[in-house]
Amino acid sequence: MVRTSERIAAVTVTPVAFRDYPLLNTVGVHEPYALRTIVEITTESGVSGLGETYGGTVHLERLRRAADALTGMDVWSLNDLIARTSRALGGDTGGGDGMSGMVTGSSTVDRVMSPFDVACLDIQGKLVGRPVSDLLGGAVRDSVPYSAYLFYKWAGHPGQEDDDWGPALDPAGLVEQARRMIGTYGFTSIKLKGGVFPPDEEIAAIRALREAFPELPLRLDPNAAWSTETSLRVARELDGVLQYLEDPTEGIGGMAAVARSTSTPLATNMCVVSFDDLAPAVSEGAVGIVLSDHHFWGGLRRCGQLAAICETFGLGLSMHSNSHLGVSLAAMTHLAAATPRLTYACDTHWPWKRPDEDVVDPAPLRFSEGRLAVPTAPGLGVELDRDALARLHRQYLDCGLRDRDDTGYMRRFEPSFPTETPRW
Amino acid sequence: MVRTSERIAAVTVTPVAFRDYPLLNTVGVHEPYALRTIVEITTESGVSGLGETYGGTVHLERLRRAADALTGMDVWSLNDLIARTSRALGGDTGGGDGMSGMVTGSSTVDRVMSPFDVACLDIQGKLVGRPVSDLLGGAVRDSVPYSAYLFYKWAGHPGQEDDDWGPALDPAGLVEQARRMIGTYGFTSIKLKGGVFPPDEEIAAIRALREAFPELPLRLDPNAAWSTETSLRVARELDGVLQYLEDPTEGIGGMAAVARSTSTPLATNMCVVSFDDLAPAVSEGAVGIVLSDHHFWGGLRRCGQLAAICETFGLGLSMHSNSHLGVSLAAMTHLAAATPRLTYACDTHWPWKRPDEDVVDPAPLRFSEGRLAVPTAPGLGVELDRDALARLHRQYLDCGLRDRDDTGYMRRFEPSFPTETPRW
Repeated sequence: MVRTSERIAAVTVTPVAFRDYPLLNTVGVHEPYALRTIVEITTESGVSGLGETYGGTVHLERLRRAADALTGMDVWSLNDLIARTSRALGGDTGGGDGMSGMVTGSSTVDRVMSPFDVACLDIQGKLVGRPVSDLLGGAVRDSVPYSAYLFYKWAGHPGQEDDDWGPALDPAGLVEQARRMIGTYGFTSIKLKGGVFPPDEEIAAIRALREAFPELPLRLDPNAAWSTETSLRVARELDGVLQYLEDPTEGIGGMAAVARSTSTPLATNMCVVSFDDLAPAVSEGAVGIVLSDHHFWGGLRRCGQLAAICETFGLGLSMHSNSHLGVSLAAMTHLAAATPRLTYACDTHWPWKRPDEDVVDPAPLRFSEGRLAVPTAPGLGVELDRDALARLHRQYLDCGLRDRDDTGYMRRFEPSFPTETPRW
Repeated sequence: MVRTSERIAAVTVTPVAFRDYPLLNTVGVHEPYALRTIVEITTESGVSGLGETYGGTVHLERLRRAADALTGMDVWSLNDLIARTSRALGGDTGGGDGMSGMVTGSSTVDRVMSPFDVACLDIQGKLVGRPVSDLLGGAVRDSVPYSAYLFYKWAGHPGQEDDDWGPALDPAGLVEQARRMIGTYGFTSIKLKGGVFPPDEEIAAIRALREAFPELPLRLDPNAAWSTETSLRVARELDGVLQYLEDPTEGIGGMAAVARSTSTPLATNMCVVSFDDLAPAVSEGAVGIVLSDHHFWGGLRRCGQLAAICETFGLGLSMHSNSHLGVSLAAMTHLAAATPRLTYACDTHWPWKRPDEDVVDPAPLRFSEGRLAVPTAPGLGVELDRDALARLHRQYLDCGLRDRDDTGYMRRFEPSFPTETPRW
């Protein structure tokens, strides 16, 4: 094909680490550092774009293999990105999910291509002089609402001083955490990461949050820690209290069994994590809401397709998050802005990232009243801070962590920490 | 939002008529003129883009109403195009399908917004300096295969001399038509519009085509003229002969009943014509292949969403056509080129349009070996010929036709022409 070219000249793949808090979940506890990878694509004409993804070793090796296969690709050829990534990976698909075993089964091709898709769109936007949201059909909202993401947490990492957030191990601690987080960011929805304590304690926590914040939608996410029976009991006890209940139990079959016997909307980012999961989930009526995540659904364009599928099959759509930096936050915000049906507040771990640690200038990423204004500069609207990238890469090299392992870290302090599922 | 703007300054909506042949189908016969509408959008900065759609009176009035609502819209705000079109139409959704009653039930908003979506993408491509296929994810093929679209036909319109194609009312006539069409264009797939004669005659026609073209995939489309029993009998008699059988019978229920008892793949552009049809069709297993058509599926981006749905739910994807001009052919070709899973040859009525009648310079639209090279110039890659547009608009004014009415035209010559369904 004869046409003007914006071919890829270079792709850099840089693992980074940033400090994290001892946040508890059903498989363990966050380690002192969260791992991410920053990709930067530069075209022959010198325009560059950014993407961000997980930082584990298997994933990192795959990213490097895919990166090598992208030289010469036109940044407008996103269909070719899928094909090249797929060829570069060959049949290599096991593991590398980057989520400490909590979310498995996503498509390896989609997961690996995601940051490159974002970086190509960043470049397209710069070439066109338009924000990425315009390349996704245009922003339907000027700002995107996010939710307050509450975690049970220790006072600090063992052996270190208490951190600035302090402990949250009971309802009162969570309410205090919520007050501070909402005071700072203005969030108008609340999500609690559950599956940490016996269900009755988490029911009590939700009730305490309901009392403290009578107007705010509440969500509870035990990461499939419960049996279907426990799930139904919790749903019954919290009937009318939750906006939705996330992944109470494991698998499409388990979720379908719960869905059949409760009117509480069920959401998932665990049993529907790839396009292959959609047909069985729809067929069985397993979930009412899909929590999309461009990091494992194949990037921003593929998430647009997921949104169309959800609309077509009567599923709601919200957005999942892992610990992330500013490149991902910008990408999530453009995507949410350009997705008309994404009407729930999105999840973000942003409050758990220290303000002085990022790879981009944080200026365009300011929350107001729980919402983030959609960046309006060309592309993603965030600029790489190369010194900061070097610092976080150095931190990656120095910290010694190479794979997220919430369970292993927990067992250093609680050797008998259980991993059987369901836990309750 | 503060950003660079490419706002719409003007939209023109021009009905046109071009000469058509007396092509037979199950509801009647094509009139001497086919009606279309050409839309042209011009931005404040003077860049213009083209779209093409149906030409009936109800549709035309809706297009004008939508056009009035687009002034000031940014051409990158395609999500806003949906919202504006929907608001402009209000609750006005009945009729106006433009397909002589053969295809009903498509979404009026999708149908009305389609040519504006195409025109906006044409402008986006010109602004970016890239073909429309790049805005859809990039061409995965340099050229798009089309099929030979055979019709039973009269020798000429009644009261006129025989036309240059002459009659095709039996197997021999269809084989002769196929030989000429394939000789001219090089098509490597064949589709027969059926539902015209009793099924045994059409079975004989397919067998004659199989004998004359032993290597070419064959399709038969009776436009739901048959009962489920007749459909199953034809499927049985043509077992292994057809690539797919299109819309043998009416409705999702009817198609599902046929699908349960035949291994012949069933395709549709009648029972699945809007996003609302997909969930029930998937649930009932009604069809194996969806014939997409950007004219009623909401434009090129929405067809990309349809493609993702088909892939996700294991449905094949092909492309439907009505009588059309070069703007639509260019749009269809960009869409097909950028749809990885669209692996069947697309339908086109192109051979039935006289070469000297179009609204664009036909130079970029040349078939070779049954394929059309994907235009590589910015946007759609076709240029409006204003003199030709004026001629075809004058022809529209003079011809007196305002709505497609294959049945009414047929009844002028066969007053007792039946309309009951199923006909056999």
